[in-house]
Amino acid sequence: MAAYSIGVDLGGTNLRVAAIDSDGHILDRVSVPAVYEAGPEHVVTEIVSVIHKVRSQVAGYELFGVGIGVPGFIDIDAGVVIGAANLPGFQGFPVRDEIQDRLGTKIILENDANAAALGEMWKGAGKDVKDLVLLTLGTGIGGGIIINGKVLHGFLGMAGEFGHMTVFPDGNPCGCGNCGCLEKHASATAIAAMGRMMHFGRETTSATVYDLATKGNERALLVFESVGRALGVAIASLINIFNFPLYLLSGGPLPAWDLFAPSMFSEVKKRSFTFARTGTRIEKAVLGADAGLFGAAYLPLQHAEPVAVSA
Amino acid sequence: MAAYSIGVDLGGTNLRVAAIDSDGHILDRVSVPAVYEAGPEHVVTEIVSVIHKVRSQVAGYELFGVGIGVPGFIDIDAGVVIGAANLPGFQGFPVRDEIQDRLGTKIILENDANAAALGEMWKGAGKDVKDLVLLTLGTGIGGGIIINGKVLHGFLGMAGEFGHMTVFPDGNPCGCGNCGCLEKHASATAIAAMGRMMHFGRETTSATVYDLATKGNERALLVFESVGRALGVAIASLINIFNFPLYLLSGGPLPAWDLFAPSMFSEVKKRSFTFARTGTRIEKAVLGADAGLFGAAYLPLQHAEPVAVSA
Repeated sequence: MAAYSIGVDLGGTNLRVAAIDSDGHILDRVSVPAVYEAGPEHVVTEIVSVIHKVRSQVAGYELFGVGIGVPGFIDIDAGVVIGAANLPGFQGFPVRDEIQDRLGTKIILENDANAAALGEMWKGAGKDVKDLVLLTLGTGIGGGIIINGKVLHGFLGMAGEFGHMTVFPDGNPCGCGNCGCLEKHASATAIAAMGRMMHFGRETTSATVYDLATKGNERALLVFESVGRALGVAIASLINIFNFPLYLLSGGPLPAWDLFAPSMFSEVKKRSFTFARTGTRIEKAVLGADAGLFGAAYLPLQHAEPVAVSA
Repeated sequence: MAAYSIGVDLGGTNLRVAAIDSDGHILDRVSVPAVYEAGPEHVVTEIVSVIHKVRSQVAGYELFGVGIGVPGFIDIDAGVVIGAANLPGFQGFPVRDEIQDRLGTKIILENDANAAALGEMWKGAGKDVKDLVLLTLGTGIGGGIIINGKVLHGFLGMAGEFGHMTVFPDGNPCGCGNCGCLEKHASATAIAAMGRMMHFGRETTSATVYDLATKGNERALLVFESVGRALGVAIASLINIFNFPLYLLSGGPLPAWDLFAPSMFSEVKKRSFTFARTGTRIEKAVLGADAGLFGAAYLPLQHAEPVAVSA
């Protein structure tokens, strides 16, 4: 029987679930509004219910397991969320075991940005490599590191905090206590903040700045040039550190690629001789919001593979 | 029969060779002056001759292989040096196969800083962990990344170029084309250069600045404070990226630890919430120049291990 797995993405507004076969084809998908403030018990019940629904739609396939992308730090071994600002009450809650008990199938939790990086490697912009870095540009900046096809977690599940790399040591103060964090200079939030500093008004969002820039507004263009410089400083260091073949960017500001990419590449060329001398690639991620779903679904398939091979 | 392997270190002035058993005990060691300008054929003959000598001293042990730490970029699969400023004529020379043919034993090449990182993990400051970053402070700054007990090479063997991380985007120009590279602000060379800027005279070396600082010279103390700041900016980013339990420093400026560590830790605490909230350690490497020898010797043992287990 052909194998499939289920990917779950605990997104900001929606809880999304997809059944994906081992070749990466989506067999079924469901999205329901997420009500995280109702607490973990409620959310777990909702996840189980949606998975049951998806499962009932997929006949003739063997379920390998369920992967869940969570916006927070995960203790992978314990299957527990150890820190998640947007999931009240989840800290320490045994998410994995609760769902595993109710579904009777293998559950694997993963940080959502790590899942997105894994998804891009499996079926996205990185499907020709086994080593990549993904930076996710949003309210903040996060990301994931894939080494030899697997997520790098670090000893506490906190690896890949690219948003808090220092790019300008005397730059904007960050809530983390640092100054000049990448996310204070290149996230969607930073773009909006820079737009307000450019006198575009109190209600300025990153989309406002983008619209103005596409219409040729010089100050809006300067904002994206600055974003590119910050990204370039960070990515050049990442290239010098990892020597990976591929670095991907995803998230809300991605449509502005043509506006920030020139200054980004200019900085990277200057700041990384590895980039200047090799075929290192910096590219757009291609799966959008589905990257996390694909990555989550890939987790049980990935862990199942060695068993399948040796059986 | 107990196993041993031979580690070779192609150091700046000496070619050093040690026979080390699988528990990490040095059975024999030899050091001869290195004459790299005589070309790779000569150096290979010298390596083979010294290994023969060491081998003849070690009776009753089975040789698992030879690891060689080389100051340059290595194509690990091909066993070829692909870039080494201090080894004229080595580029493209089949170092591994030449030595392997003459000795009839398994030879593994490795970058010297990577070998040092591996050595510190095996028998040094990192023997309680499997994941660490080592920064080697010398003429430049290099280093190695150990993930799950193995060296991270990157796709072209260029991983771990910490010396060219940008710490001050508008800082000192570097020969690599960048400005504000870590090694322009924290290497032994940088310490000497800062000393000259502090008017300590043309002949100033990092040792001069160190001597003055230990005598309480304010300007010399400022140099080391600046070194600590640069290291702190870089290490904070490394901690945010890797979330490893351990970051090690080695090299000539290490005796000045007490002079640069306060500003280094102050920067890291400010710039990495991961460091501030977890038990992440930043420590001195302990093996000194022997780290590379231990790491080189560990390479054949490490690769032999799975074979031994399944046999």
